[in-house]
Amino acid sequence: MKKHNFSAGPSILPAEVFEKVSQSILDFENTGLSILEISHRSKEFLDVMQQARALALELAQLTSKGYQSLFLQGGASMQFLMTAYNLLQNKGAYVDTGTWSHKALVEAQKIGNVEVVASSKENGYRNIPTHITAPQDADYLHITTNNTIYGTQYKYIPEVSVPLIADMSSDIFSRQIPYNKFALIYAGAQKNLGPAGITLVIVREDILGKVFRIIPTMLDYQEYIKNDSMTNTPTTFAIYVSLLTMQWLKAKGGIGEIEKINTEKAHILYQEIDRNPLFKGYAHPQDRSFMNVVFNLVDESLTDRFDNFWKKSGISGLKGHRSVGGYRASIYNAMPLQSVQYLVEVMKDFEKKS
Amino acid sequence: MKKHNFSAGPSILPAEVFEKVSQSILDFENTGLSILEISHRSKEFLDVMQQARALALELAQLTSKGYQSLFLQGGASMQFLMTAYNLLQNKGAYVDTGTWSHKALVEAQKIGNVEVVASSKENGYRNIPTHITAPQDADYLHITTNNTIYGTQYKYIPEVSVPLIADMSSDIFSRQIPYNKFALIYAGAQKNLGPAGITLVIVREDILGKVFRIIPTMLDYQEYIKNDSMTNTPTTFAIYVSLLTMQWLKAKGGIGEIEKINTEKAHILYQEIDRNPLFKGYAHPQDRSFMNVVFNLVDESLTDRFDNFWKKSGISGLKGHRSVGGYRASIYNAMPLQSVQYLVEVMKDFEKKS
Repeated sequence: MKKHNFSAGPSILPAEVFEKVSQSILDFENTGLSILEISHRSKEFLDVMQQARALALELAQLTSKGYQSLFLQGGASMQFLMTAYNLLQNKGAYVDTGTWSHKALVEAQKIGNVEVVASSKENGYRNIPTHITAPQDADYLHITTNNTIYGTQYKYIPEVSVPLIADMSSDIFSRQIPYNKFALIYAGAQKNLGPAGITLVIVREDILGKVFRIIPTMLDYQEYIKNDSMTNTPTTFAIYVSLLTMQWLKAKGGIGEIEKINTEKAHILYQEIDRNPLFKGYAHPQDRSFMNVVFNLVDESLTDRFDNFWKKSGISGLKGHRSVGGYRASIYNAMPLQSVQYLVEVMKDFEKKS
Repeated sequence: MKKHNFSAGPSILPAEVFEKVSQSILDFENTGLSILEISHRSKEFLDVMQQARALALELAQLTSKGYQSLFLQGGASMQFLMTAYNLLQNKGAYVDTGTWSHKALVEAQKIGNVEVVASSKENGYRNIPTHITAPQDADYLHITTNNTIYGTQYKYIPEVSVPLIADMSSDIFSRQIPYNKFALIYAGAQKNLGPAGITLVIVREDILGKVFRIIPTMLDYQEYIKNDSMTNTPTTFAIYVSLLTMQWLKAKGGIGEIEKINTEKAHILYQEIDRNPLFKGYAHPQDRSFMNVVFNLVDESLTDRFDNFWKKSGISGLKGHRSVGGYRASIYNAMPLQSVQYLVEVMKDFEKKS
């Protein structure tokens, strides 16, 4: 029986995608070859790459606006390094809203000057700072639009005059936002886009080529742009699965439609957390993430009983990150409304039996 | 109908692996979850990672000898950078035997001093230099044991007193060699190990931690060792497929057994190239690769006819690299003897009909 998988990443993908991928492992589009064995230079794969790059820009409504989309290796963590390596000359401005945004700025400190312009660290990362500004002499402002571990999410986009960079690993393409306010967006695929092993980067070309340091080939955005995102062999399979997932999203009606479902999923789950006397939410209500719903038991002595209860009910991946404890329901684009409704029922049921 | 796939990489994997992977996309080991959606921190995946790392060392006979195995992102090209970043303090010694070894040394030049101690460039990379030495003040000697594009392969291991580093992307685990003569081995998986998107690194720990530069987290071997190869989310799927491929190799009898088959495959193919008046080999006979068999038509005006002939015969991926032209039959571990015999028949048949 298929489980209800609330894992934070790698995470659930659409059932239709799993079906098609399983078939393509044996025979990709009637080529007589597995998707795993076709050359990245073959016509078949070049089509996949071209479609994936184009569709990413289309979903973000960034076609013909000077943006390039790339599929790179190394995860968001490699982007912590690459953004600094390619863009940090005078100073990088960072907002610290959780473990990953903190890691981003620590990595940038190895490359140059960093200024933390806002932080919610003292508050246990339970909220998103407001009134964020960036110094005029900063090369960019870096934010993390959704904080997977603490379950917070920006509900606004900071208005700054320097280029805005965002780690959108856990909420890309989940809601309608003006992507054109960002100069560079990156997202590890393994949450809302596809399997682990590929990172989508969308970059406005005019911000590149302005730093004086020598950039190694494999860290240089301009090299990847020049080589159509194939400076070396890319993670072909992960790009293919990401393409299928983006096609599924487009067929669903695009970001506008998925946002409605995502909003409903988040509302019914937070509603239950607020109603059910056994549970309490972690993040401040106004900054609650619609992708990662983090909550705790009011009485922690019930932990073992609740853990057994949801596991026995066919639920998977609900355990919170080790740094926060409690529970985290990750309800990315591919998570069906029905699975969230089911989780709510399980929580109600646990209340009755407690 | 399944094609005979001679692609240089991504390339053929064992049919049994494709079958099992296709099933695991739908349900991984009866977990009720796809292999693509399980967390890298789940017990299930930690088992996969631990087994894959252990089996890589076992196949190389490097258990309990101070070696660590890692599965990293970025391909061999990222290793060009990482090896220099982690090990180059005074001088890196390099042997230039082809496009990829050349790229390795060019990348290292961005980090520090490089000395090219031997090269076959003037010879069109048709051979492997002999009597290779490395200066005493070099931090290491870097070689490429098999040159995918030109079809050459080291038949001996240079005896040097500095740490020996090897890019074995295209011949790892294809033959019995004393892996313990190397201080660091790396191999992009997409030839002999698994799908694109993961790179096996085997490193003797005592060579690390000796350079003075600050190493970014994502380029630091010691960080990956400390984190059991999971500094961030790894390419879970590619590691899983690599594990299955290594298990298949072990079940076949290990490297000793596969070497016998690889030797036979190479012999019958080179024999046909030498016998058939229509074809000629590219590399010097004594340095011919047993993994990538590179050959040309004697009369290039037959190109279109031969191309149509093998394509029509159900063969795929035989086209040579754009920098050499002609043909390249990549006959990695997973390539069945029968497919090589079939290619020989097609070549004979083409001769008859020409």
